Amino acid sequence: MGKEETQFDKTKPSVNSNGYRVVGTRPIRPDGIEKVTGRANFGADCNLPGMLTGCIVRSPHAHAKILSIDTSKAMKLAGVKAVVTAADFPELSPKHRGAGESPVSFRDMSRNIMARDKALYDGHAVAAVAATTPAIAQAAAALIEVKYKVLPHVLDAREAMKPKAPVLHDDIFTKGVDPKPSKASNVAQRYEFSLGDIDAGFASADVTVEHDFTSQCVHQGYIEPHACVASTTEDGMATVWASSQGQFMVRNYCATVCGMDISKIRVLPAEIGGGFGGKTVVYLEPIAILLSKKSGKPIKIVMNREDVFRATGPTSGGHAWVRIGAKKDGTMVAGELVMEYEAGAFPGSPVHLGCMTGFAPYTIANSKSVGFDVVVNRPKAAAYRAPGAPIAAFAVESAIDILAKKLEMDPIALREKNAAREGTQAAYGPKFQKIGFIETLEAAKNHPHYSIPLGPNQGRGVASGFWFNIGGESSAAVHVNEDGTVDVVTANPDIGGSRASMGIMAAEVLGIDVSRVKPIVADTASSAYSMLTGGSRVTFAVGQAVCLACDQVVAQLCERAAKIWDIEVSDVEWLAGSAVNRKSGKAGSLSLAEIANVAGKTGGPISGQSSSDVQGAGPGFGTHICDVEVDPETGRTTVIRYTAIQDVGTAIHPSYVEGQLQGGAAQGVGWALNEEYIYDDLGRLQNGGFLDYRVPVASDLPMIDTVLVEVPNPNHRFGVRGVGEVPIVPPLAAVANAVSAAAGTRMADLPISPPKLLAAMDAK
Amino acid sequence: MGKEETQFDKTKPSVNSNGYRVVGTRPIRPDGIEKVTGRANFGADCNLPGMLTGCIVRSPHAHAKILSIDTSKAMKLAGVKAVVTAADFPELSPKHRGAGESPVSFRDMSRNIMARDKALYDGHAVAAVAATTPAIAQAAAALIEVKYKVLPHVLDAREAMKPKAPVLHDDIFTKGVDPKPSKASNVAQRYEFSLGDIDAGFASADVTVEHDFTSQCVHQGYIEPHACVASTTEDGMATVWASSQGQFMVRNYCATVCGMDISKIRVLPAEIGGGFGGKTVVYLEPIAILLSKKSGKPIKIVMNREDVFRATGPTSGGHAWVRIGAKKDGTMVAGELVMEYEAGAFPGSPVHLGCMTGFAPYTIANSKSVGFDVVVNRPKAAAYRAPGAPIAAFAVESAIDILAKKLEMDPIALREKNAAREGTQAAYGPKFQKIGFIETLEAAKNHPHYSIPLGPNQGRGVASGFWFNIGGESSAAVHVNEDGTVDVVTANPDIGGSRASMGIMAAEVLGIDVSRVKPIVADTASSAYSMLTGGSRVTFAVGQAVCLACDQVVAQLCERAAKIWDIEVSDVEWLAGSAVNRKSGKAGSLSLAEIANVAGKTGGPISGQSSSDVQGAGPGFGTHICDVEVDPETGRTTVIRYTAIQDVGTAIHPSYVEGQLQGGAAQGVGWALNEEYIYDDLGRLQNGGFLDYRVPVASDLPMIDTVLVEVPNPNHRFGVRGVGEVPIVPPLAAVANAVSAAAGTRMADLPISPPKLLAAMDAK
Repeated sequence: MGKEETQFDKTKPSVNSNGYRVVGTRPIRPDGIEKVTGRANFGADCNLPGMLTGCIVRSPHAHAKILSIDTSKAMKLAGVKAVVTAADFPELSPKHRGAGESPVSFRDMSRNIMARDKALYDGHAVAAVAATTPAIAQAAAALIEVKYKVLPHVLDAREAMKPKAPVLHDDIFTKGVDPKPSKASNVAQRYEFSLGDIDAGFASADVTVEHDFTSQCVHQGYIEPHACVASTTEDGMATVWASSQGQFMVRNYCATVCGMDISKIRVLPAEIGGGFGGKTVVYLEPIAILLSKKSGKPIKIVMNREDVFRATGPTSGGHAWVRIGAKKDGTMVAGELVMEYEAGAFPGSPVHLGCMTGFAPYTIANSKSVGFDVVVNRPKAAAYRAPGAPIAAFAVESAIDILAKKLEMDPIALREKNAAREGTQAAYGPKFQKIGFIETLEAAKNHPHYSIPLGPNQGRGVASGFWFNIGGESSAAVHVNEDGTVDVVTANPDIGGSRASMGIMAAEVLGIDVSRVKPIVADTASSAYSMLTGGSRVTFAVGQAVCLACDQVVAQLCERAAKIWDIEVSDVEWLAGSAVNRKSGKAGSLSLAEIANVAGKTGGPISGQSSSDVQGAGPGFGTHICDVEVDPETGRTTVIRYTAIQDVGTAIHPSYVEGQLQGGAAQGVGWALNEEYIYDDLGRLQNGGFLDYRVPVASDLPMIDTVLVEVPNPNHRFGVRGVGEVPIVPPLAAVANAVSAAAGTRMADLPISPPKLLAAMDAK
Repeated sequence: MGKEETQFDKTKPSVNSNGYRVVGTRPIRPDGIEKVTGRANFGADCNLPGMLTGCIVRSPHAHAKILSIDTSKAMKLAGVKAVVTAADFPELSPKHRGAGESPVSFRDMSRNIMARDKALYDGHAVAAVAATTPAIAQAAAALIEVKYKVLPHVLDAREAMKPKAPVLHDDIFTKGVDPKPSKASNVAQRYEFSLGDIDAGFASADVTVEHDFTSQCVHQGYIEPHACVASTTEDGMATVWASSQGQFMVRNYCATVCGMDISKIRVLPAEIGGGFGGKTVVYLEPIAILLSKKSGKPIKIVMNREDVFRATGPTSGGHAWVRIGAKKDGTMVAGELVMEYEAGAFPGSPVHLGCMTGFAPYTIANSKSVGFDVVVNRPKAAAYRAPGAPIAAFAVESAIDILAKKLEMDPIALREKNAAREGTQAAYGPKFQKIGFIETLEAAKNHPHYSIPLGPNQGRGVASGFWFNIGGESSAAVHVNEDGTVDVVTANPDIGGSRASMGIMAAEVLGIDVSRVKPIVADTASSAYSMLTGGSRVTFAVGQAVCLACDQVVAQLCERAAKIWDIEVSDVEWLAGSAVNRKSGKAGSLSLAEIANVAGKTGGPISGQSSSDVQGAGPGFGTHICDVEVDPETGRTTVIRYTAIQDVGTAIHPSYVEGQLQGGAAQGVGWALNEEYIYDDLGRLQNGGFLDYRVPVASDLPMIDTVLVEVPNPNHRFGVRGVGEVPIVPPLAAVANAVSAAAGTRMADLPISPPKLLAAMDAK
């Protein structure tokens, strides 16, 4: 982490080496003091008078028909105020699309929130109860009698694809295949992305490698469990306090699932204690709304950690088979990838994103990626940083490592030879504009880490990764206050530093000190719409909206100055936070604060507002180097050195960007080495807690070094690219390549847990 | 009150008789159900974890030097967490103007909030304490030892102007007089507004009448006492929940009085249980902020009714001398008005507004109005509906009544002869545009009330009244949701139905059902600036901002339709809530909801935002008819019939407008007949409660009939004029004229309480 400058550091130069005054500096984060003093309000911190506690009854079976639900005993318990089951939710047709453009099945969402007819995984919600105390709510939940007919279950994608596998849904007929199947199966969809002619490609190859890779589904592992409060009133309004990745997402999803007008729901964003993609859906909020409607009281529901593991989305585990053909000089001429991802209980794994990203870092003339989206008796998969990409990259980047060894080439040099660059046609569609992949490879090659000698039982792995990054619908408002301070209003939860980056960009455009800018995260009733926080879109797209709103403010400030000076606005220039009269004859300059102070006399409030669908996100590439040491006695792997290098476009607040790289790497290390769901024979989760589901803690990791390569995105004023997703893409392969090198055997099945590694080393 | 239509009444015609579809209808108020079910959160309804109670120590003396304040005993009491006195507030210079354009003295405001050096009225805050419970806070307040040197006091304006009167401030040197006085006095300012030559005017008069009138200060009598919660955090931010007439006003005033950046304060508006001008200032909020800073906890302070009476602004009482000269035919040729208003402990009575409004309804070629702003040992006067106008109108309209009797003319006919009309030069400045005063007089003359025969001891009075109405800085944002519902965001508390009227105007412009519009009152951190609610400005000015923001939305909707149809936007028309292709060849139409549903695909969120200084408010005129019966035995007056007639421009939601007329009349009746402050010899308030300070209750009043005369304001899209202030202007004189007629003697001293009337009748 770089050194922190204070907001009041007067020693900083007026323009930094990047040409900006504020962009690229490291002011104290606006939300920092609130968070370290415990003032910040997270999802569970909202308390309302008369509030009840909601408790969810969950299926103990991985797959079961719900025969009956008897809530009468629970309702008789003193203090119990309401019970809801699926019968209380509107039944949505499979074609119900909701309003707007959510590419989700609301029918599935509704049935995931509350099981209807069938429970599809251990932990699937089947009923909920609200009572005056948590203890009564739990007691009441235990009194709800659910009769099940237990059905056979399946947990693994390839098992679920077998003809005799238990079928979860009788209305899933595989999409994307011809002819359309007549029999229901667990394969929801087949995807294919192709470029060139792979048969010809492989025929022209001098060397071909191929390998199978498997990985387990892993959880996002956010520290804050899901929590919300909903309060409904007799006029049909609902107010929801929730920790999420998008207050407008919560509003839209709740409205659709509960059958309400969108304007009848107001969502107030709580601070969020981690999301990583896992809070882009709703679980509790619609239940809380319906319990509140039935009871007439505000309802709080808070998951415990076991609920989080049993019933909220991990990302998919799956299988990948990869084949790469190359010329002797290392030129890759053909690539093929076939993957099956576990979607959980409802369709929607990110396998198509795996297909799109796997070969994306490379110029391969002939490639084909095929993916199968497979339902299994696990919780419905949710997004997790660069959804679908890490396990595709694990396969491809491991295969490239094998190829490098076969060709006896340096793995970085092999990647550099084939690296995508400006003008490369990506298999998933576009031609790349200016990108910085090669720059990350150069930086890796030249980094001291790459030449540190290794000791016994040590190995070094390298892997790269890609993520599209996205833009999308984004709004911002910028209000100049009477004293020249400025409120910057956006409506995306501050997950990765958006308050800081919005404040910095506003200060840069307006030409004022960042301490004069107050970034606000607004609720759904007071802001124009913004898409949720995800896809690494916020600093880029919402930042663009902030810049556009600031432009409007600057234009208004110049108009006011022109009015005050009685000159043409074309003679006014905005320079370093002040209006300047170009025709220097008259007056010197008027600062933003001076103009703000008389705004009421010169036309009224000075405010800008921008809403648009921001396009032009710059793709991101990263290259990671990992050194490990394996213990031949125990099979334990220790990461001893780790360097994450990434083209981050322009780093608005470098400390946050470095933190993103470190966080992604840490999560990737956990994915590679330790994290997995352990189910018993009946499909019941056995390790639903952080003691048994092992994410890396500080003592498990070395200091993760970061290198920010800055190749500005040509489509953003300051060159911003998304940075949050890329860093979780390379680590799986980087770690596996390092362990394979250290152990002297290819490790292709994640997690590379000690018993698995020990067995592999013993087998060798 | 007219009949209520439901929002879902499908029988209503598509266009009403006024030419509008929604404007002029009476949908259920958006805040209604929340309020009648007790859900709405008022100032005292906010509760935060760890919150402390603040309690104010108030001066028991009308005028006293503060020698010392010893808080040590209070601080030793278990549970006491903080004490503040004036020493904790920044000392502001008399010239401190704050940021923006508040025409207030922040030095005086600060000293009114917390006495510094001197206590200037009974109830003046001298210290405050915060403790864990209300009981401890009260006990601690009692332990704060304040040593005073009691000084002589003065309560009456004319007494305070005498040479030997105690002088409240040694730095007040009367402004507006020449030469500038060398000696401090209680007269803060002299105002004069003149037109023509009054000496020549009176010389040309055939008849002259003159009279003295006195009135007492009266309280706004809002049902909800002042209440707030403030929570500060270690990063210097303060969040304030308060019931007020303007969240931005609270933010600005707190920032200035507490010495904070404006952006460091976020004010969340509570519902408001009445304000009537009395909540356009702050009393508790800065104290709560400072107690919170000192204690590190949220602070709630709630006034009781006695606090409200002792320490919050009533409007001025005062004295007026009026003289009017007229020709035999009733043509008024000269008018003179001299008034002294009690400002309370700090300068700032609305005497200049009395001077400006007194003769404003009439075309008088020669007039002069002189006013004196006089400080006395009473709470600082605050605004109260049409500040300053009612007691000026009481004098002028009583004098016109006397003149009518002298000329043996019908009092309505006399007013009609002299009524201001389009083109009349008002003495206070402007020439009137289209106004509807004569129309109210016509309506009064023709109203059945005016010809009902009177019985014994009964009398009828007529009076008219005027208010400027204002516009001012106003912002609104309009957001189209994914399902075609619409959020209309403004930042003025809903005092008199602004949610309903904003929703109606938005529905009218957009062409959708009003039930699809959700009006939102936003906090200061999520909205652009709006001036406070006052001057009858909101429906006019903020409504204009809503219309302008809706225009932007309509333009965007047409652009999206053009994009969908791939035609020029100039070929798209917005008609009754849908985009229509003028060149009917292609498609039929696209509704707002249909366009909203695909907004994400056609350019992003559809939102409009308008901020401007809205000008062009239309002046308002009213004419009231009052019938009373007096009891010769007791002197009690009963109002037996009351009709309030007003030019309201266009009534957006007529039920609310009728309510404004009824409410203003009711308050005016109380002012005329009963309300007054009773002080003992030491200047201590004796009737600080609703049992002793008698506002009219339902059983005191007849049904107040209303007639809405609609002469549209040419400067507003729908013709809106302010309506909230005018109705309190005529009642004082209407009642007094009626009582004078019934009693057979001129009643010129308010309130016309039973003992006073009995004495007058006995004297006759």
